[in-house]
Amino acid sequence: MSNQTIPSSLSIEGAAEALAAVRDGRPLVHNITNYVAMTVSANVLLAVGASPAMIHAVEEVEDFVAIASALVVNIGTLSEPWVEGMRRASRQAAALGKPWVLDPVGCGATPYRTGVAAELSKNGPAIIRGNASEIISLSGAAGGGKGVDSTASSDAAVEAARALARASGAVVAVTGAIDYVTDGERLVAIEGGDALMPASTALGCALSATVAAFAAVRPPFEAAVAALAVYGAAGAEAAARVKGPGHLPAELCDALYALDAATLARRAAISLVEPA
Amino acid sequence: MSNQTIPSSLSIEGAAEALAAVRDGRPLVHNITNYVAMTVSANVLLAVGASPAMIHAVEEVEDFVAIASALVVNIGTLSEPWVEGMRRASRQAAALGKPWVLDPVGCGATPYRTGVAAELSKNGPAIIRGNASEIISLSGAAGGGKGVDSTASSDAAVEAARALARASGAVVAVTGAIDYVTDGERLVAIEGGDALMPASTALGCALSATVAAFAAVRPPFEAAVAALAVYGAAGAEAAARVKGPGHLPAELCDALYALDAATLARRAAISLVEPA
Amino acid sequence: MSNQTIPSSLSIEGAAEALAAVRDGRPLVHNITNYVAMTVSANVLLAVGASPAMIHAVEEVEDFVAIASALVVNIGTLSEPWVEGMRRASRQAAALGKPWVLDPVGCGATPYRTGVAAELSKNGPAIIRGNASEIISLSGAAGGGKGVDSTASSDAAVEAARALARASGAVVAVTGAIDYVTDGERLVAIEGGDALMPASTALGCALSATVAAFAAVRPPFEAAVAALAVYGAAGAEAAARVKGPGHLPAELCDALYALDAATLARRAAISLVEPA
Repeated sequence: MSNQTIPSSLSIEGAAEALAAVRDGRPLVHNITNYVAMTVSANVLLAVGASPAMIHAVEEVEDFVAIASALVVNIGTLSEPWVEGMRRASRQAAALGKPWVLDPVGCGATPYRTGVAAELSKNGPAIIRGNASEIISLSGAAGGGKGVDSTASSDAAVEAARALARASGAVVAVTGAIDYVTDGERLVAIEGGDALMPASTALGCALSATVAAFAAVRPPFEAAVAALAVYGAAGAEAAARVKGPGHLPAELCDALYALDAATLARRAAISLVEPA
Repeated sequence: MSNQTIPSSLSIEGAAEALAAVRDGRPLVHNITNYVAMTVSANVLLAVGASPAMIHAVEEVEDFVAIASALVVNIGTLSEPWVEGMRRASRQAAALGKPWVLDPVGCGATPYRTGVAAELSKNGPAIIRGNASEIISLSGAAGGGKGVDSTASSDAAVEAARALARASGAVVAVTGAIDYVTDGERLVAIEGGDALMPASTALGCALSATVAAFAAVRPPFEAAVAALAVYGAAGAEAAARVKGPGHLPAELCDALYALDAATLARRAAISLVEPA
Repeated sequence: MSNQTIPSSLSIEGAAEALAAVRDGRPLVHNITNYVAMTVSANVLLAVGASPAMIHAVEEVEDFVAIASALVVNIGTLSEPWVEGMRRASRQAAALGKPWVLDPVGCGATPYRTGVAAELSKNGPAIIRGNASEIISLSGAAGGGKGVDSTASSDAAVEAARALARASGAVVAVTGAIDYVTDGERLVAIEGGDALMPASTALGCALSATVAAFAAVRPPFEAAVAALAVYGAAGAEAAARVKGPGHLPAELCDALYALDAATLARRAAISLVEPA
């Protein structure tokens, strides 16, 4: 990877400035997320400086999108009444020009789940964030032509992410040992985090909420890159302080709450992969 | 503020005795609360010595109110099936003479939410607990005549709380940097807590559950004052032990679990504001 | 209690081997559980080495059971749409020969809850796990003839468990200060855990999820015994490291994550009670 041509908005310094903008602006982030992730997502958003709200009912999602700065839709624990809330909220966000983030949790696991993710991906998300198998599956289901949900190598996910970005118009972030962000043309790699993070539930979901907070203060591509760098740095910092996964969510919140530019630079790295 | 005429039931000693009564009685507290707050509310109730249960379905809420000692209704993550459970449970509590606490989370944010809070406030809550903007909004919606939901200064909230108490017949608690409890005539201020508490999600919701536990063993006004003092003292104690918001809920539970009269007296203060 | 005739599959060594099998196999455990328990159940399953998923909608539960290795159904926060998901998922598990665990939370508290638990107990659970009063109540409701839900002594629960095992065909685990597992004939006692555990919410629910993970790699009786020993050992280890209930869930996850055979042997004991 080459770092030499990276624009300043995609640099670690740019990520630090985006974090400062979140803390200054305290954006109201509307979450429609799964039951497992709700508490940790709210705590992560508070720790990063945003203001979280969880609102899912059809009676009020459109009104709430209107007062929020960004929306995250996470399909982890689906059911029809929630899906209808997701539909209305995402359409309203698109109609009002507010950024919204799609987290297609478990896409590929059941036909219902894959169908809902594919449908929502057509409602103009600013950013889609998932793991390799979710992005590969959604890319296939959404017409990106890379629908291979059994093998989830990083390379396959990057190609699928690129195809999904082109098909959906969204910036796509694939997270894993190394995270990738693409808009279909540019490809940025972010290093950070820790191998312990997948052993604590819903940290990926809380990352998607964090991406939404950054999307309230930066354009989608810059927002995704900055959020992944900030989260990865805080995750690495937190993992260094624990002996197992149990206290990781609490330490992650403390690390996000206290994160400064020096720690961010020490614990995360951003590389422009393409154009090289 | 003057402390000289405070009745013993509203003193720190009275709060310590109320806490002992909760621990002795282990009241069964029926919670209909939001998804974000469920786990921390249950843990806080256990830590304070109560027995929590989360029951929301129309098929069983009335039966469960009948065996519970108190009920808390929190509208954080609303939807119609839950609202119907809230209606039936609150009416049943009133019919059976059991105290119930209303937490009007986000009142004022959407018309749906404000309407539900206003409707429930007419079902005879013993206590209503909210932050300044929620109480101001609900007071206006419930006919208290103080419906200003944009500015949320403490003074405005106190006047709105007084009006809401008169309109609803409930004791009203407004929590913030300083907490206030009023029944429309008397006004008590409680100091405690820490500025870090709002950076951890749902601690206000868990406070409302704690208020319900105290309402099972004390009359509403004394219950609200005692619960706020106990929670404020434990919150201050917990905040002194952490470096950020991440571990605050766990430390709060430990502080509540171990709280003794000396710590309570050191970490919280109760003042009778009116009558002066 | 006599330990001399215990088969190796029911020994502490057998439990250690079962834990290794979970860690090697990373079984996908399908959870339909209550809102309070979701996050801690997912974290406990990850800590023990399993792969958790929370899926409840009728649109996808049958598809998901088909790809899962085991299912746990926990009725803590019931409502009709969820009960229908529980019905379909449990029938599907039985039809496909996959083990499923029933946790009849609060059975006996309301007629609705007791009825749902009794109905689900007829869908062929491999294991039923509950506390003394739940098992006594379910045993009565399911036709075991021991329906005494007011007194919950250990002895009464053991007899009720035996009757429930015979009526349902399931292995029944009654947990408390001492845990018991019976298939209607054999009776095994497991010692471990700590008196602090009931002061932290949903640890019993997370235990049921752990039992499901073990049922994916061992026959039901051996699975229940091994899971209870592992969980009891980790719980005792965790309780020794905390000063109150607040950090217990996080410490429990760390203890499960790091549990080795020596700690397991030191912190838990298994005894064959019958045949003596």
